[in-house]
Amino acid sequence: MAKTPVLTPRADDFPRWYQDLIGKAELAENGPVRGTMVVRPYGYGLWERMQQELDARIKEAGAQNAYFPLLIPQSYLTKEAEHVEGFAPELAVVTHGGGKELEEPVVVRPTSETIVNDSFSRWVQSHRDLPLLINQWANVVRWELRPRVFLRTTEFLWQEGHTAHATYEDARDYAARIHRDVYADFMENVLAMDVVPGRKTAGERFAGAVNTLTLEGMMGDGKALQLATSHELGQNFARAFGTRYLTGDGRQEYVWQTSWGSTTRMIGALVMSHGDDDGLRVPPRLAAVQAVVVAVRDDGEVLATARGIGDRLTAAGVRVHVDDRTDTPFGRRAVDWELKGVPVRIEIGPRDLENGTAVLVRRATGSKEPTAIEALPGKLPGVLEAEQALLLAQSRAHREDRTAEVTTIEEAVEAAGTGWARIPWAALGPEGEAKLAERGVSVRCLVAADGSVPGSDDQPGNVAVVARAY
Amino acid sequence: MAKTPVLTPRADDFPRWYQDLIGKAELAENGPVRGTMVVRPYGYGLWERMQQELDARIKEAGAQNAYFPLLIPQSYLTKEAEHVEGFAPELAVVTHGGGKELEEPVVVRPTSETIVNDSFSRWVQSHRDLPLLINQWANVVRWELRPRVFLRTTEFLWQEGHTAHATYEDARDYAARIHRDVYADFMENVLAMDVVPGRKTAGERFAGAVNTLTLEGMMGDGKALQLATSHELGQNFARAFGTRYLTGDGRQEYVWQTSWGSTTRMIGALVMSHGDDDGLRVPPRLAAVQAVVVAVRDDGEVLATARGIGDRLTAAGVRVHVDDRTDTPFGRRAVDWELKGVPVRIEIGPRDLENGTAVLVRRATGSKEPTAIEALPGKLPGVLEAEQALLLAQSRAHREDRTAEVTTIEEAVEAAGTGWARIPWAALGPEGEAKLAERGVSVRCLVAADGSVPGSDDQPGNVAVVARAY
Repeated sequence: MAKTPVLTPRADDFPRWYQDLIGKAELAENGPVRGTMVVRPYGYGLWERMQQELDARIKEAGAQNAYFPLLIPQSYLTKEAEHVEGFAPELAVVTHGGGKELEEPVVVRPTSETIVNDSFSRWVQSHRDLPLLINQWANVVRWELRPRVFLRTTEFLWQEGHTAHATYEDARDYAARIHRDVYADFMENVLAMDVVPGRKTAGERFAGAVNTLTLEGMMGDGKALQLATSHELGQNFARAFGTRYLTGDGRQEYVWQTSWGSTTRMIGALVMSHGDDDGLRVPPRLAAVQAVVVAVRDDGEVLATARGIGDRLTAAGVRVHVDDRTDTPFGRRAVDWELKGVPVRIEIGPRDLENGTAVLVRRATGSKEPTAIEALPGKLPGVLEAEQALLLAQSRAHREDRTAEVTTIEEAVEAAGTGWARIPWAALGPEGEAKLAERGVSVRCLVAADGSVPGSDDQPGNVAVVARAY
Repeated sequence: MAKTPVLTPRADDFPRWYQDLIGKAELAENGPVRGTMVVRPYGYGLWERMQQELDARIKEAGAQNAYFPLLIPQSYLTKEAEHVEGFAPELAVVTHGGGKELEEPVVVRPTSETIVNDSFSRWVQSHRDLPLLINQWANVVRWELRPRVFLRTTEFLWQEGHTAHATYEDARDYAARIHRDVYADFMENVLAMDVVPGRKTAGERFAGAVNTLTLEGMMGDGKALQLATSHELGQNFARAFGTRYLTGDGRQEYVWQTSWGSTTRMIGALVMSHGDDDGLRVPPRLAAVQAVVVAVRDDGEVLATARGIGDRLTAAGVRVHVDDRTDTPFGRRAVDWELKGVPVRIEIGPRDLENGTAVLVRRATGSKEPTAIEALPGKLPGVLEAEQALLLAQSRAHREDRTAEVTTIEEAVEAAGTGWARIPWAALGPEGEAKLAERGVSVRCLVAADGSVPGSDDQPGNVAVVARAY
């Protein structure tokens, strides 16, 4: 007899499956203001681990955390022409404060390039102050007409880096460093997600940037999701805000800048990359709980043994939770841990105890294996690394299987029905890009012939990766 | 010859000294929207350490982090009568979003009791869901007419805890536990600040609370600052939002709730408690940099030795920074480290090298002592603990010296000119409290005769601690 599905199967209705999972795994729910979300403790725990891993990499890249105000004078946004054009339709505007109408409305930050440059124009005086490398963890608001929890929300959480450099080359190299050593490294080695690093076309760049580097991931349904971006801003904001420095030989020059961000959208990406019909599958290096020891029922000895296993696994460096809620039926708890995607489950009941074994259940493979309790602490670290590697391999194979090499727009649209297409940029160009857009397909990024990130849109051999996208 | 003061001396103009220090130690600056602030990297580093220490204590108390939306429907605020009355004058109101006027204005959260209860009313069904213990790290906005950086800002950062319990007693005990084991413990043992735990009078309670516990600190000028509060909310918000649970015997009951918060104001408190005329003094347990090794000038060997000392101190568990900016004059760097308040400075120049010594400078005492380089790793941990203890002892002595025992309102007002007064609550009462308020003096808290936190305002023997306050 087939078991009743806990979630709508992905093959039946992928968006519905996503909503089901977000709700039943207690990751998040909608807030009362349209497009906002409440991130529940289990979902926030994923974000906390993402923050820890990203923050360490950001600091390793030399940036320091700071905090800039939420509220920005409306006039600031208009100082950089492309920037205001890009963000004006999404702004939340505060017109009243302290019981009075404000003389000048203020906007809730959609991003912080403008207010950061207000400070940078004071902080940067001499070439000795450069590079200036700043990051902030914050919330931003972009009014969202078609919200979807984690993926597109009116408010989201993120980190945004903002840097100023003495030369174009230094800024370019730093944007590339963040793209590679912070974002790509984190996504592959912690999130176990296959990502394609590339360059956005002119039409897809951040509002105010001269170049945008992106990481694109393929979701379970074959659509693309932009996971993080790193921008070269040139001197656009420096000119708008007068951010200049004195060179070694006494000239005043505008600084060269970068900005880069990654958001709570990554939680949605995690779900849509690794989730299956039973729930989420959290990669062990990300998981706040890597192994849950489940006491099947309470006969005293079982609970004591479960706790003992927990202690020994903790000592072995595994992040463990002991589930001792034996007043809740075992089956319901097992379903819940599957939904939440804890990488390894260790089930122990009276019968196991007699044999000195426990059942080791791996979430990614679904395998169940009786294992000697004595052997668990030695075995677990290797099992967790194997689960981590399996998730990345599955993610990579999924993208490779569903990516077609094509040469015409028709073929690209056809391929985008189930996955991605790669098409020579020379055969597509901005005109072909516009034609694809009419059919709901976008150029996710350009990649060089050898798979590296191209230095320009028109570098010979560039390939466009095109797809339907979230 | 007396050295030129870097800061306005405290005795000349305390508020000016505070502003000078905030600027010159690069802690923060004003944002462009009145009352907002930019927290600079050095100031934000203090906040990051506060977050780490508080977050660990909050999790130890069983609460989990989550995140609720910034934007709250205006109608939510009005559901609890006292709450809206308290916060209405301070609200920032968003009237336009996505280029359109909104049907219902939304407020930027001044605090989250209302939106949290919107979720709690769904999350709590049965007594098995209780206690529900949630915390969030977030920004809030309260329109501020007389802003002062860190102390009163239109936007500030904080943590806010929100909990639901089955019984009055359980909620009361949890509010007290947070007050004691999270806030008081953190302030004394990490911030090295003497604090007086007590109970707010009815007139000073949080808008919507039935009881507010507070921690009050005495600043360098003798004024009081409220450092953190923990509230019993009774069933006020539960009734307003319908947050009910099914009891073990099948009845529907409203939950009993608490909320509690601590903010970036603590950075201002740190400055005003431990700062002296040379700058900030950071307690070692808080400091992100506990010891800075300063190379006086670069002759190759000095730099190599400084880095070697840095490595050995790191290995000894000390958080170290090596200052190798030898192109900046040594004197300027020394002044800067004094301003920033790094607990210990280890200065090393060519002459020290000949003797195998370095100069150990303690920020809190100002002592300078030649010390054998070999002895530093063994000596530093003890020196840091001594500095930590000294700051707490000084803070305590300052409060005791400047607190007068009085029995009349006149004496209380007089004492509040330079410090605090303790006066029997029976001799003061709400009427005396109103009279003091007319003279700019407030009841900071009530404490029991034995120094504990009273269970009620009218407990016999209660003493009112009164002062001018920030």
